[in-house]
Parts: sequence; structure tokens; C-alpha cells
Amino acid sequence: MNTDARAHGISRRHLLASSAAAAGAAGLGWGGRSLVEQSAASTLPDGQQIVPFHGSHQAGITTPPQAHATFVALDLQPGLDRSLIIGLLKAWTQDAARLAEGRPGLADSEPELAAAPSRLTTTIGLGPAVFEVAGVADQRPPSIAPLPPLPIDDLDPRYSGGDLLLQVCSDDPLVVAHAVRILARSVRSLATVRWTQRGFREARGSHPEGHTMRNLMGQIDGTNNPKPQDPGFEQALWHDDPAYPWLRGGTSMVVRRIAMDLDTWDELGRRDRELSIGRTLGTGAPLTGTREHDPPDFGATDRFGIPIIPPSSHIARARAQAPEEVFLRRGYNYDDPPEPGRTSNSGLIFATFQADIAKQFLPVQQRIAEFDVLNEWTTPVGSAVFAIPPGCEPGDYLGRALLEGSR
Amino acid sequence: MNTDARAHGISRRHLLASSAAAAGAAGLGWGGRSLVEQSAASTLPDGQQIVPFHGSHQAGITTPPQAHATFVALDLQPGLDRSLIIGLLKAWTQDAARLAEGRPGLADSEPELAAAPSRLTTTIGLGPAVFEVAGVADQRPPSIAPLPPLPIDDLDPRYSGGDLLLQVCSDDPLVVAHAVRILARSVRSLATVRWTQRGFREARGSHPEGHTMRNLMGQIDGTNNPKPQDPGFEQALWHDDPAYPWLRGGTSMVVRRIAMDLDTWDELGRRDRELSIGRTLGTGAPLTGTREHDPPDFGATDRFGIPIIPPSSHIARARAQAPEEVFLRRGYNYDDPPEPGRTSNSGLIFATFQADIAKQFLPVQQRIAEFDVLNEWTTPVGSAVFAIPPGCEPGDYLGRALLEGSR
Ligand code: HEM
Ligand code: HEM
Repeated sequence: MNTDARAHGISRRHLLASSAAAAGAAGLGWGGRSLVEQSAASTLPDGQQIVPFHGSHQAGITTPPQAHATFVALDLQPGLDRSLIIGLLKAWTQDAARLAEGRPGLADSEPELAAAPSRLTTTIGLGPAVFEVAGVADQRPPSIAPLPPLPIDDLDPRYSGGDLLLQVCSDDPLVVAHAVRILARSVRSLATVRWTQRGFREARGSHPEGHTMRNLMGQIDGTNNPKPQDPGFEQALWHDDPAYPWLRGGTSMVVRRIAMDLDTWDELGRRDRELSIGRTLGTGAPLTGTREHDPPDFGATDRFGIPIIPPSSHIARARAQAPEEVFLRRGYNYDDPPEPGRTSNSGLIFATFQADIAKQFLPVQQRIAEFDVLNEWTTPVGSAVFAIPPGCEPGDYLGRALLEGSR
Repeated sequence: MNTDARAHGISRRHLLASSAAAAGAAGLGWGGRSLVEQSAASTLPDGQQIVPFHGSHQAGITTPPQAHATFVALDLQPGLDRSLIIGLLKAWTQDAARLAEGRPGLADSEPELAAAPSRLTTTIGLGPAVFEVAGVADQRPPSIAPLPPLPIDDLDPRYSGGDLLLQVCSDDPLVVAHAVRILARSVRSLATVRWTQRGFREARGSHPEGHTMRNLMGQIDGTNNPKPQDPGFEQALWHDDPAYPWLRGGTSMVVRRIAMDLDTWDELGRRDRELSIGRTLGTGAPLTGTREHDPPDFGATDRFGIPIIPPSSHIARARAQAPEEVFLRRGYNYDDPPEPGRTSNSGLIFATFQADIAKQFLPVQQRIAEFDVLNEWTTPVGSAVFAIPPGCEPGDYLGRALLEGSR
């Protein structure tokens, strides 16, 4: 199936994910009914939906975004070597695979909190330092490094950097909290938590299927994201550079925390808010269209010759200027208790996946940093970059090709 | 309907809540189909479910707990008087009623974030200082005051006290974030945020109907909560003391932030964890029973004459020793980013409603503070008390009887 599916440009995970309920049911002893029976009956509570952990790519990347995500960056304890990093990745692989299926982690004293995974995925990333510590510095793609300094940034070390990343997503916040704890705890002698960011989207089932999320500025956010059926999707996402064979089928991730100044944003009239993005707030349609997925017409002008979608608007600046500039955004809202004296502490945990940060992400990010009206109400306050190893099959562990690999 | 329903011991809100989808549908122009048609069709996304704001009691008390809750305590700005407090409560009443129906707040620049309320409720509370500032100090029931000092407490001002409370609940975290912002912003010239606590339960739909939530210690939490159909439920909940006529149909609320030391808890064997509560972790059944709702037998002993449910266990200590000691628990889990060097920052936002704190809540809380094995792994770090005015009808505002009342 793997090969066939790939030939048709559909990843194995994509096929598997659609039969998640059936897979889950079988795994948990619900009797292994077929997918068709499952969906016909539809009596399984949503908690039993499962996204398979194993596959050629890690889960949590092309998985339709779950309602909740916690991003945890960890730092390696001093004095580790390659074998301890192998141990760490083996422990995480085992626990992540078990938790995805609703089974407790290996040293899990609260198995009941794992039993309804609600599409739990764990995505594991390797920050720049891992390559040094493991003695494989030559295997680090150059763009697995902090982003070059950007004039718009006001970075806080509390949300920046990190040697390892856990992205834990589920439709259920209790499941996320439990899984994060199990994963962080199982490696605590090897790595300490550097930062934790909790994000959310609309609850599962709040909106009709196919709904694009809204962020806390009120915008529909994610419309022109590449979709698995798009030509070039696989190339945009999965690394395939012969110089780094261990990363084939993997990808890279940028996690930026972007604060929104909602007070000044709200002072803006609705029309100005729409002009700053280039899309309407109601439907998310481009200012030159009527429906969310209408293609924007950047050339269209009004009767005074003024572009209808301002060239300074976010979509004009962010839009790919070449096919290489496409990447996948998979961000989450954050809304934390305001600091004393402030009215809000909200923004986006802006997370992207792309085969190559330098070629795909950076040109867009730099264009935005140079100019984008949206910058007036948004400030990047955190930034981190990780290599995301490919997925693995049962019995194997994430990152093996890097650490003991046939390189 | 109101009078009839009351005669049968069922509150008006209780009846209304069950027809929430129908009410919502009508309100939003979905065509006013009957409840039966609604449930038969069941094509409405969950976001359209509505809990009515108006009624004899405030919403968010006997409302089946939504998945997400944010608790916000605010302090009055210096120099306010009764008329400004009236203004504040009018503003909140209007916005809360609108938001519950999926309509934007009055000064809401993001109406789209209000459109899918997902059972949004706003519950408004008055802290001790309001009575002084409004010049109605004689109308403060004595127990609307900080709890007497408890030996187990290690209170942090960051989570304690407050002149006003907003409890905003919804099944959708985006809706909660938006509503909190609208409500806090609409009164910002009158009150500033003192603390914010964000809590969650399992996601809507994760588990079969009637499931009792689990907390982060892994316990089923809420089993022996009073239920609307219990005799004495109305008396336990709604204030009815002729000395404070303005509070008739209202209640009082205790909000305690209780930290869990999950690391030491996890070191305990499963059996010891079960003994410390008096219930099993798997089903939540009392140690003398097999199903969650089996009544515990505190007199039962093993063959050595030792009580099967330890007298020091949480349920033995917390159980009402008299009918007056019954109150409603409506708490939420919290799981915040750990402080540097710590592995977790988790616990319960323990919230209770009762007609009279001194008679119902305090004896139990004091018994627990005196002794309860669970205290070894839990520490109250925040505490606040509020009067919860009764509900109001359209056109009226919450708290009117206190502030301009026929007293
Ligand atoms: C808080 C900060 C940001 C907000 C609120 C935001 C919001 C939006 C919105 C509302 C859209 C239009 C709908 C859509 O296609 O998703 C959009 C599009 C887009 N954004 Fe952002 N964005 C932010 C930051 C960024 C950053 C930092 C980048 C890249 C470095 C970026 C890249 C993109 C791209 C590539 C598109 C699609 C443009 C197109 O092809 O039409 N955004 N964003
Ligand atoms: C983190 C702290 C706490 C935890 C983890 C906790 C957990 C639990 C659990 C698992 C139960 C058994 C199931 C149930 O009936 O709900 C329970 C029961 C109960 N708890 Fe707590 N609780 C905590 C604090 C408190 C406090 C501070 C109070 C009161 C001041 C309280 C009052 C009660 C009551 C009244 C019952 C029902 C007892 C019965 O009638 O069987 N709990 N709690």
C-alpha cells in the first residue's frame, strides 16, 4: 500500500488517518469492525479516534490540526553523548506510539488519562545542539539553526531556542496535559524543560467540517495553506536532499511566538483591518472575491487605479513569489493570563513545516520583516527551529538513521 | 412554565438548558424548528448550542460543566460609587446575554468570534469590597469574606481575593478567550484584572454522555456531587435568607486554586493512591463497591477489623456529616507552564456553589484542613469568595435588587 499510495501522491499516513477510528477500535479491543461499520454505527465517542504513530512521516504534520497543542522545548543536560540521546529518542518513540493508541506510557501511573487519545499525536524535533552533542555535526543541515536576526523581532529567551521539541496535539486538553507530562518525565534525567507554550483552535465539532480556524484577531487563518492533494505538496514538505539522507521523509519546523496587540488592533475600523490582511473578516474571501477560496486578484484596481488588495497587505507580502516558497502553516492561538497592568496576552504560536527553511520559509519571512502592515499589530517574541526526523516503523525509533545510520 | 416547573422542584434554567439547541437555532434565524426536529436532524454544529442567559438563577452553576472555563477576578478602580457599579453590572449583563446567544458584545470588533457560543455562560460574582464601595455594607452576608485562615493554606496573592468575578465557560476555548476579553475590556475604566485562571475538563464528546471528569491525579472527580433531581438540591444551592432578600435565588461561590504535587503522587503505589481517596482509580467505585455510583460503606471492615475505606481518606473526611453540609463542586483542571526547574504546574481550580458558605462549605473545608491524607499531595495556593446574585429577566440587570433594591 505504501508504494502504491505514494505513486498517487498520497502519503501513507494520509490514508491511515482516515481509518483512524477503525484502527483505534481494533487496537483497543473494540472488536476490529471495519471502517464502514464504524462510521455507520458512529457510536464511538470521539475520544477513541486514533492517528497512527508509525509511518514514513511523523504524525502531527499533515494530520488535520487537533483542537489543542502544547509545544515543549527541552535542553539536553550537560555531559550527554550519542548513546544517551539514542536512549532518549527510544523512550520517546515508545511512549509516543503507545499514547497515540490510548495505551499508557511505559512508566505511566495514570493509565486512565491515556485511554481516550482523541487523535493524540506527538511530533519530535531536534534542535541545533543535538548534532554537536551526538557527534554528528556534519549531518546538520545549515538551516537547522536560529533564524537570522529580523528587524521586527523582540525575542524573549523564555520562548526561544531549545535542543529538543515535543509538539503534542489532541482534540482533548486533558490528553495533551497527560501526554506532555509522561514524555517530559520519562527523559527528565537527560533533558529539562526550557519552555512550554499551550495553544488552541476551535473545539472539535464546533463548526462544520472543512472550516478554517479563526485566530484571536478574528481572521480566518489558514485558507491558502497547501493541501495534500496539491501538486508539489510532498516536495514542499518532505526533505529529500542526498546530502542528508537521514532526513529523507523528514522535514523542518519553525516555531515562532507572535504577540498580537489586540487593543490597538481593535481601534482600527473593520475596513482597515480587512485591508491590512487583504481578505474580508466575514468570509475570509480575498478583497477581490466573494468566497473564502476564491483566488485573490492582486492585479485588480479600483476606478482610481488603486490596487484593491494593497501591496502592503499581509497576503500580498506573504504569498509565494515562486513555487519554492510554499510551506505548511500549522499554528495555534495562545491566550495566556495578561501580565500585571495589561489587558491581554494573546497571539499565535506560528508553526510551519517545510523541507528547507532557507529556500521556502526564509524568503517569505524576510519579505514580511521588511514590510507588512500587519507588523504594526504583531511582534515576534519567540523563535525556534528544529529538524523533524522521518517517521518510523514498529520496532524502530525516531532519528535512528541520524544516530546510528547508514549515512 | 416557571411556576409549574418550580413546583416540581425543577428550575426554569434546567428545563431551558435542555432545549438549548432549539433556542439557539431560533435566535440565530435557523428557522425556529422544534427541539424534536433539531435533535432528529442533528446537523447543527456543536458551536450553535446555547445556554440561555436569562432566568431566575445565573447560568454556569447548574449548567452541565462545559469543557473550558476561565475565572477572572477584577478589582474596582479607586473612587467608584454605587452608580458606577450599577453601570458596570449593566454593561456585563448586556454583553453576557448577547454573547450567550452568539451575538457580539456591544463594543465587539470581532463579531465572528462570538458566533458559535458552544454553550457559553458568564457567571458574575461580587467580592466583599463591592458592598462597601456601593454603600450597602449591611447587605453583605458575613460569609462573603475571605475564608478563615487554614493551616494547609499557602496562599499566593496572585490567585487570591478580588472585588468581582467572571466565570466564563464554553465547550470552545476560542469562545472563552473572546468573551473574557470583551467583558474585561468593556469595564476597563472601572475595574482592572487582578488574576486570571484558565481551566479545562475533557473535551465535549470525548466520552459517552454522563461521564464524570477526571482530574490530573487521574481520579474520577465529581461522582458524589448533588444532582438537580436530588431532594434538597434547590435549598443547598439557592440563597433564601430573609435577612438578605436581594440574594434570594442567588448563591455564593468559593474559588480555591489547589496545586497537586504530581511527582510525589506518582511515586505512590496504585493501591495507596486508591486508599487515599477511598475510591478506585479505574471506575471511581468506592473501595466497598464495584460501580462508580455505588454508595460507599464507611462501616465495612476487612477480616482484621480494619475499615475498608480509611477514615483518613478524602471521601471519609469530605463526606457531608449532615444534610446542611452539601454543596456543588464545579471545578476545572489547570495545567500551566511549570516554573523554572519544576516538572509540572498542575492542579484543580476548585470551585463550589452553595447557599451559605459558613453552614455548608466551611465545616467540610475545616474537617479536611484538620486532616485528610490527600493534603500530603495537594496545597491550596489561591482562595477567593464571591456572592453570586440571582439571575435576571430581559431588560433587567444582575445585582439590581442589591444596588437599587426594594430591600
Ligand atoms: C500574528 C501573525 C500572523 C497573523 C495574524 C497571520 C494571519 C494570516 C491570515 C489571516 C492570512 C490569510 C488567510 C490564509 O491564507 O491563511 C494569512 C496568510 C498567510 N500568512 Fe500569515 N499571519 C501571521 C504571520 C505570518 C508569518 C510570520 C508568516 C511567514 C513567515 C505568514 C505567512 C503567511 C502565508 C504564506 C499566507 C498565505 C498567503 C497567500 O498565499 O495568500 N504569516 N496569514
Ligand atoms: C486537589 C484537591 C482535591 C482533589 C484532587 C479532590 C478529589 C476528589 C475525589 C477524587 C473525590 C471522589 C469522587 C467524587 O465524589 O467527586 C472527591 C470527593 C469529594 N471532595 Fe474532593 N478533592 C479535592 C479537594 C476538595 C476540597 C478542598 C473539598 C472541600 C472543601 C472537597 C470536597 C469533596 C466532597 C464534598 C466530596 C464528596 C465526598 C462524598 O460525599 O463521597 N474536595 N474529591
